[in-house]
Amino acid sequence: MTGLDALFRPRSVAIIGASSDPNKVGGRPLHFLQKAGYQGRLLPINPSAAEVQGVRAHRSLSEIQEPVDQAIIAVAGRQVLEVASESIAHGVKALQIFSAGFGDDANDTRLLLERARAAGVRVLGPNNLGLFNAVDGFFGTFATALDGAWPSRGSVGVVTQSGAFGSYFFGMAQRRGLGFSHFVTTGNESDVDVADCIAYLANDADTQVIVTAMEGCRDGRKLASALAAARSAGKLVLAMKVGVSPEGALAAATHTGSLSGEDRVFDAVLRDLGIARAQSLAQLVEAAYLATIGPRPLDRSALVVTTSGGIGVLSADAAQSAGLELPHISNGAHARVKAIACLADGRNPVDTSAGIIGDLSAYAQITEVALEGQRYASVVCYMAHIARNPSHWAQLREPLYALRRRFPAVHFAAVLLSDQGTTKDLEAHGFSVFEDPTSAIQAIAACSPLPALSELFTPTADDTPGQTIDGPLRTEAECKQALAALGIPFAPERVVTDLDTAVVAADEVGFPVVLKIVSPDIAHKTEVGGVRVGLNNSSELRAAMVEMKETVHRHVPTARIEGFIVARQLMGGAEILVGTQRDPVFGPVVTVGAGGVLAELLDDVQVRLAPVDLASARDLLARTRIAARLCEGFRGSVPADLDALAQLVARISQVAWTHRDQIAGIDLNPVLALPSGAFALDALIAKD
Amino acid sequence: MTGLDALFRPRSVAIIGASSDPNKVGGRPLHFLQKAGYQGRLLPINPSAAEVQGVRAHRSLSEIQEPVDQAIIAVAGRQVLEVASESIAHGVKALQIFSAGFGDDANDTRLLLERARAAGVRVLGPNNLGLFNAVDGFFGTFATALDGAWPSRGSVGVVTQSGAFGSYFFGMAQRRGLGFSHFVTTGNESDVDVADCIAYLANDADTQVIVTAMEGCRDGRKLASALAAARSAGKLVLAMKVGVSPEGALAAATHTGSLSGEDRVFDAVLRDLGIARAQSLAQLVEAAYLATIGPRPLDRSALVVTTSGGIGVLSADAAQSAGLELPHISNGAHARVKAIACLADGRNPVDTSAGIIGDLSAYAQITEVALEGQRYASVVCYMAHIARNPSHWAQLREPLYALRRRFPAVHFAAVLLSDQGTTKDLEAHGFSVFEDPTSAIQAIAACSPLPALSELFTPTADDTPGQTIDGPLRTEAECKQALAALGIPFAPERVVTDLDTAVVAADEVGFPVVLKIVSPDIAHKTEVGGVRVGLNNSSELRAAMVEMKETVHRHVPTARIEGFIVARQLMGGAEILVGTQRDPVFGPVVTVGAGGVLAELLDDVQVRLAPVDLASARDLLARTRIAARLCEGFRGSVPADLDALAQLVARISQVAWTHRDQIAGIDLNPVLALPSGAFALDALIAKD
Repeated sequence: MTGLDALFRPRSVAIIGASSDPNKVGGRPLHFLQKAGYQGRLLPINPSAAEVQGVRAHRSLSEIQEPVDQAIIAVAGRQVLEVASESIAHGVKALQIFSAGFGDDANDTRLLLERARAAGVRVLGPNNLGLFNAVDGFFGTFATALDGAWPSRGSVGVVTQSGAFGSYFFGMAQRRGLGFSHFVTTGNESDVDVADCIAYLANDADTQVIVTAMEGCRDGRKLASALAAARSAGKLVLAMKVGVSPEGALAAATHTGSLSGEDRVFDAVLRDLGIARAQSLAQLVEAAYLATIGPRPLDRSALVVTTSGGIGVLSADAAQSAGLELPHISNGAHARVKAIACLADGRNPVDTSAGIIGDLSAYAQITEVALEGQRYASVVCYMAHIARNPSHWAQLREPLYALRRRFPAVHFAAVLLSDQGTTKDLEAHGFSVFEDPTSAIQAIAACSPLPALSELFTPTADDTPGQTIDGPLRTEAECKQALAALGIPFAPERVVTDLDTAVVAADEVGFPVVLKIVSPDIAHKTEVGGVRVGLNNSSELRAAMVEMKETVHRHVPTARIEGFIVARQLMGGAEILVGTQRDPVFGPVVTVGAGGVLAELLDDVQVRLAPVDLASARDLLARTRIAARLCEGFRGSVPADLDALAQLVARISQVAWTHRDQIAGIDLNPVLALPSGAFALDALIAKD
Repeated sequence: MTGLDALFRPRSVAIIGASSDPNKVGGRPLHFLQKAGYQGRLLPINPSAAEVQGVRAHRSLSEIQEPVDQAIIAVAGRQVLEVASESIAHGVKALQIFSAGFGDDANDTRLLLERARAAGVRVLGPNNLGLFNAVDGFFGTFATALDGAWPSRGSVGVVTQSGAFGSYFFGMAQRRGLGFSHFVTTGNESDVDVADCIAYLANDADTQVIVTAMEGCRDGRKLASALAAARSAGKLVLAMKVGVSPEGALAAATHTGSLSGEDRVFDAVLRDLGIARAQSLAQLVEAAYLATIGPRPLDRSALVVTTSGGIGVLSADAAQSAGLELPHISNGAHARVKAIACLADGRNPVDTSAGIIGDLSAYAQITEVALEGQRYASVVCYMAHIARNPSHWAQLREPLYALRRRFPAVHFAAVLLSDQGTTKDLEAHGFSVFEDPTSAIQAIAACSPLPALSELFTPTADDTPGQTIDGPLRTEAECKQALAALGIPFAPERVVTDLDTAVVAADEVGFPVVLKIVSPDIAHKTEVGGVRVGLNNSSELRAAMVEMKETVHRHVPTARIEGFIVARQLMGGAEILVGTQRDPVFGPVVTVGAGGVLAELLDDVQVRLAPVDLASARDLLARTRIAARLCEGFRGSVPADLDALAQLVARISQVAWTHRDQIAGIDLNPVLALPSGAFALDALIAKD
């Protein structure tokens, strides 16, 4: 039995600090465990009672001769280290620490974890709300949510860090009729975290749907691996992440950082994993509900059959916004639909028209014709008030249920106003039931497969995290030299300090040239007159250099001017932003998008965990809006060299990954994507 | 009594085609009217029955001696014209035509409307579902929605064109406990339309909330006026519009048209009216619910008090996305909150911490401290499971209700899991009650005042719709000449046909110049080599002209080349898109946004009904994302001349309005906004 097994399905549990009051933190678990009919050994520990809530108690764990799988610690914070150590010594395999006070002293936590690790004991908490396993009746939790709502057994596993978040979701979901396999909240995560629990449930046969809601997490790549494992195991993962505020972005070290932002990285990781992100608790509940009734949709194709044209238009809007496809029924099917009901129209949504009320079996016939002609993964049956009129419902109920049996692999969602009895009846016959059409469509979309990357990031051959880049990397020139040595292509350029060598340099790189100031004290060269473009010959170059020196000095008298960059001016092409950023949660990420002065305004960036290989870089570029323009060329120009651009992206992502201990972020803005080749025109490296 | 009064509150109603079967179209109104205890005169008309559903019937309207306010016509389509004409002759003031078949013959409809207008009779329908007035108990409708759900009297008025949409909203809203004043569906709108009904309810004392949902409408400006009237009368208007599909935009005649789109115009009109647009039926229901319980929020400031930090973050996300403000509590208030509960934290959302469960009256105290320190229009009280535990709820209920009474002008929304009894109790004490925090925030946002324009569009002195622009307007040159004559500023330019006059023209406008081909057969000049920029002297100009003639001819051998534009090349500044489009629903609209080759990619446009005055044009420009850049200048350049730009926008909007019968759209892309002046560089006019 592993430590996590001992947490989720212990054969015996000691409750240290067990209370006779079932409303107290120490009393609730025992109360719930007895209510659930837990079949394992219940061992309340209380120094001053011979029995607690009718169960024989012990004064301390040391009095117990038998082995104990799990100890729940519900004593005051200052006593935790002692009783936890005692439990470890006794041979428990897992600990839960409900006590909120524990952990304030970092030293205590360190000591406890050392002892636990040495003994192979897993620790959940401190400051967590506990967990329950509705399959085995293990309720090691003090969640007050259980007072109002006892869970039915089902296939939904809930994993959250916050107890409040998890238990409110539980409360909402339970009211919607969902059944649960497991529920776990990880609290302060001294050891076991959300990722561990997701990975555990990924291998749990009783869990088919994993719901997780989070504010953030400590180790993003571990979380991503757990989510990927769950997906590979065929589980549906439904995730919610709160904290969309731009504050994370404000603190970013580079331009790329401010565009990629923390929440955007989270979003990109979920997208690359093919996991739908819910925007509200209600969406999370509705999606989980749909996933537990009838088959999960096999792809993103849906059919909408409606008695109202207006609701059809509404559904089409919602489908478009949620990324569901509504493939049209064939001409033949359309003709057959018209033969059934002459006022029926539309190819998807199919509007039966309200006239169908005269013979409601036609509603089922029309749906059948549509499903026969083409494969749909799900069907939305909008039926308005039909079920509220018994004589109407009597006409439709049997034909509808027969139809549902004919297409067992298709998810059927019924959207209608119905009473509780009819809803239960529909659910028992394999229909998910919704009142709001938009909610139904959003739930279907959340449960329908999304494309995912086969690998979330691509390991590189050259992966030594300790690597460092030599040099101070203070100026554009220094950053470019360092990156050029690592394989990033730049426009040909020289760094010079006087007029004569500048002219020689310009002859070497070729006119026209760009002239830029080199100074460790100037971040924004353009603003202080430190950039001149379109210099066509040596006299223009000489004049520009003299003028630049004066202008820059006038703007920033204290700036140390170390020289000038003379670079070949590349013409045409598109300005692309390429950069990397070390995300606090996920580590290095690579960002691509529309670049140049309008970058922020365009807000057209895509982010992915670094490193990426060539194929992944191409895919990432293709997700930007500007990609279509790159492929076709701007206003009649020839297409950009996407291979060269992707190579540059892959290379910079590998640099960021390999040097992740040293480099906080890299900006290459702009990179010029030309018909042949892609070249960075500027470079900035933010180091620790 | 006006025709609309006779529709909404008739003193007597004849039902022509009255049926004894209460499930038939002709039977339902009589059934509902009797059920509602309608106090007016009920006059069933049936050629073959002396009584219908227990009411004395007449064979035809002509048998009735007394005056009749309203006739409901529920006979077969082919009989409608006859009985309607008979009703008009009898002196009814309003007609409802339920019959779906009527209207297929346009001639019949025309005849009926002529007779109705001549007699001052208003017609609702054909093909409508009817209306009800829950205040006076008038139920002139055959809506099956009433079978399952009888409305309670309240302050919500529902106006929809589609009967299905309206009655499904009614069904959902009724389940949420909303009460209704009126419900009306307008069907095919031969006469009375949605705008008429909204304008009527704007003046109805019993209606405080007007809910409308639509797919489109025929006369957008009439609808906008009705909505504005409702708003001026202090009614809350909640609107939903479906049909977001981009198909309307695809058919657009100009670039501006493709960027402004039909749905975008609708959206802009609602925004300029300060009316919130619901994105789903559920949102519409929740907002109407909130508006009918407790006071409507006086502004967009809200306070969130939560027992869970995670729900606080979620609420802040939702508030940001919905455009609600969460002003921070003061330092003093924060200190007082900490004194009440040491673990409490956050300045808004204020997190009481879960520890509050020990003494729940502290929850009310904390909320009170926050409300005392600063004015909030609404407060969201997240209370998790508290109400499901009777002993917890007993601690909080009284202090919470006392607090609510202390702040009668503040809207209080309770977000929690509660049973029906507690929900009713909360509602009775002035709390709106929600399960999902996001729904609560969205509902508050929908009911909180939005800024609105004082005038939706600004009439111009020179408003003669018949005005036309002379000239063929086939080429850029012709369009520019026409628009220049109407006051639109362009860069200095000449149209020339040979080399020598080109050089003279260039000397007149000043080098450097731009050279463009003039041909009625070429839409995209750049693609065929028909544009050259940066010509610095006469020899460059001559060479470019010779080369252009050849290149254009090679690309489009059949193109008639009528000459060349030689224009002064303006340097610097920002490229802005300015255009107009005749919207099929709202008529001329003006569009501004980021222009140039990246216009579509930036998708940064703002639309408003034309004409706009200078102030409105400035406001519209300020709503674009690029506006901030215009004000500060790009990369160190000086700010653009926003006055000149706004003047150009106002002028072109007036041109579009005055010439609305002739001009389908105008593109000025780009307009160059310079530090001094704004000049259109290109022009295209789409005529009918």
